[in-house]
Amino acid sequence: MKSNRLEAFSDGVIAIIITIMVLEMKAPEEISLQALLPLLPVFISYLLSFIYLGMYWINHHHLLHNVERVNGKILWANLHLLFWLSLIPFATSWVGENHTNAAPVAFYGFLLLMCGIAYLVLQTVIITQHDEDFILRKVVGKDIKGKLSLVFYIIGILLSFLNPWLSISCYVIVAIMWIVPDKRIEKNVD
Amino acid sequence: MKSNRLEAFSDGVIAIIITIMVLEMKAPEEISLQALLPLLPVFISYLLSFIYLGMYWINHHHLLHNVERVNGKILWANLHLLFWLSLIPFATSWVGENHTNAAPVAFYGFLLLMCGIAYLVLQTVIITQHDEDFILRKVVGKDIKGKLSLVFYIIGILLSFLNPWLSISCYVIVAIMWIVPDKRIEKNVD
Amino acid sequence: MKSNRLEAFSDGVIAIIITIMVLEMKAPEEISLQALLPLLPVFISYLLSFIYLGMYWINHHHLLHNVERVNGKILWANLHLLFWLSLIPFATSWVGENHTNAAPVAFYGFLLLMCGIAYLVLQTVIITQHDEDFILRKVVGKDIKGKLSLVFYIIGILLSFLNPWLSISCYVIVAIMWIVPDKRIEKNVD
Amino acid sequence: MKSNRLEAFSDGVIAIIITIMVLEMKAPEEISLQALLPLLPVFISYLLSFIYLGMYWINHHHLLHNVERVNGKILWANLHLLFWLSLIPFATSWVGENHTNAAPVAFYGFLLLMCGIAYLVLQTVIITQHDEDFILRKVVGKDIKGKLSLVFYIIGILLSFLNPWLSISCYVIVAIMWIVPDKRIEKNVD
Repeated sequence: MKSNRLEAFSDGVIAIIITIMVLEMKAPEEISLQALLPLLPVFISYLLSFIYLGMYWINHHHLLHNVERVNGKILWANLHLLFWLSLIPFATSWVGENHTNAAPVAFYGFLLLMCGIAYLVLQTVIITQHDEDFILRKVVGKDIKGKLSLVFYIIGILLSFLNPWLSISCYVIVAIMWIVPDKRIEKNVD
Repeated sequence: MKSNRLEAFSDGVIAIIITIMVLEMKAPEEISLQALLPLLPVFISYLLSFIYLGMYWINHHHLLHNVERVNGKILWANLHLLFWLSLIPFATSWVGENHTNAAPVAFYGFLLLMCGIAYLVLQTVIITQHDEDFILRKVVGKDIKGKLSLVFYIIGILLSFLNPWLSISCYVIVAIMWIVPDKRIEKNVD
Repeated sequence: MKSNRLEAFSDGVIAIIITIMVLEMKAPEEISLQALLPLLPVFISYLLSFIYLGMYWINHHHLLHNVERVNGKILWANLHLLFWLSLIPFATSWVGENHTNAAPVAFYGFLLLMCGIAYLVLQTVIITQHDEDFILRKVVGKDIKGKLSLVFYIIGILLSFLNPWLSISCYVIVAIMWIVPDKRIEKNVD
Repeated sequence: MKSNRLEAFSDGVIAIIITIMVLEMKAPEEISLQALLPLLPVFISYLLSFIYLGMYWINHHHLLHNVERVNGKILWANLHLLFWLSLIPFATSWVGENHTNAAPVAFYGFLLLMCGIAYLVLQTVIITQHDEDFILRKVVGKDIKGKLSLVFYIIGILLSFLNPWLSISCYVIVAIMWIVPDKRIEKNVD
């Protein structure tokens, strides 16, 4: 299978996930602008997940950019990533309605952690399928940013039982850290 | 990343948004043709949003038509546009059930305004990433139509507190204004 | 805009419509095989709509197969078709739960009629945009099958007030008539 | 029609089916980590269906990989497969909430059986449309794996009335059997 089919399928799944989340935002029963206020946390959790999914979409492309052919291992590592990503709307909906409670906030962090791990696994599988000169190997290097994100997620999960706002801050910091596009790959690969 | 990937992803998201709206239209409990009558405002709000999204889809293509490569700034400006577009089903559902109330009508106009601004931002980001000879720069020119739309949205939002029907008229006028395909780009670029 | 973008977008929308319908089928509360029996009419209405949408997808391709560039008129004629197609899940859900009542059955026929008309409009717009040698013009000819379908839909709508089963038969006959792939185009165009 | 259009459409439908399933998982009302426990069977049924759909997506590509042009028969055989696949979210939702009951477990197996048969039909239709040298003919051979899967599904359906866990085991065994990518095709065809 050529990598562009894999990209197209992954694009489709991510596009659906990112759009399906909005279905969780139900129009309020009341008809005043004040009725929108209680939806604000839902809106913000939706925005954060939107940024995360957009981020995964962009990085996923950078990852597959130099891969030409994919084998079974890469296919399943990619489906594994899509599986965890597809659970984000579920966690977003839960955390959006209960953002001051430990459980949903910790669970949201757990999902981000699983997505981060799945992404690392996919990256590792792709690199080990190629030889030493493979450009992605050099570009990714020690991948400090990827591993640092995992640490932040774990801290966020632990902090949620202390104060949910602290762990939300952790998730926001990671998002900001990644919004800056990965200069390493953009410069070296293109 | 090549611009055709960006187009395909945006196409996917817009296709999902435009189709998901229909889910808001629930089959009536009663089983008579009269039972469809109360759904008429929902149907018309769905039709208007369908036209707006179709319009954005067409103009989005014209915009990306001459862009060959995209960088991080364009990617995020595009995701920013998709984010606001993805909220249209939510506003459509609210306004469809309460089209004679100020709040939903104003909110619908606010969303159209944010989409319009996000589109202008994307257009500006794309133009500033290219040199002076870039064909889109000449074609867009002062973009009177784009800015006029924003003015109409703002007037619509303000009028909603006076008479919701007046502001709905504003939104319909903008739609009609854009349904006429952008001759400027179609002629000059192709 | 090239016609393959239009095809890809239309494919996306049709793929979403065809899949979204299944969401209307809710898992029964009871947990016995008998609990599936009341779902049978819903299932069959879903199957019929699936065949109709599959039919439109196939014919839509035959239609756009020889078109190279599309203009604003074709774009809007195509969006017009997609609009009516996107309402099919709504009508399917209503008719599936009330298949022995005149109103839903007539409404379902009305939607099929609007889809049929929208398809004819798109076909006419495409043909009038091309010169006399355009291959589709010869292939389509008088398009007896297309116009006959419209007649059947109208008969179906009228019969629904007499006996819904008669009108359902009309819709099934049209589906069977089209399931046989359009030999005319397949032979002449390819 | 070229086979890549068929692949793109099928990709779209499978991507939507695989993602829509997650909508069945509703965020719990309670806000504790314990509230997630009752969702575990739903989660696992979702995971199993995700693997099945991923499996069909991968094998579907292998199947169409060497087909260049498709005719009406292949189109309808493919839509037939997509129809049964699109019912998987419905069955997954039912079995996820009632995994210890015979009816949903048997029904889930019945759907897997229909998907398996539809896949075999598509494969046979494709092969009979090509001549004796067609590479897929040699690769597929007697297709022991495909037919063995059908046997397992039937055993699973029958066992469900004895003990649902036994039939679930059957479905899991088939999934594991297929997760190992089809070496035959991957080696011979590429």
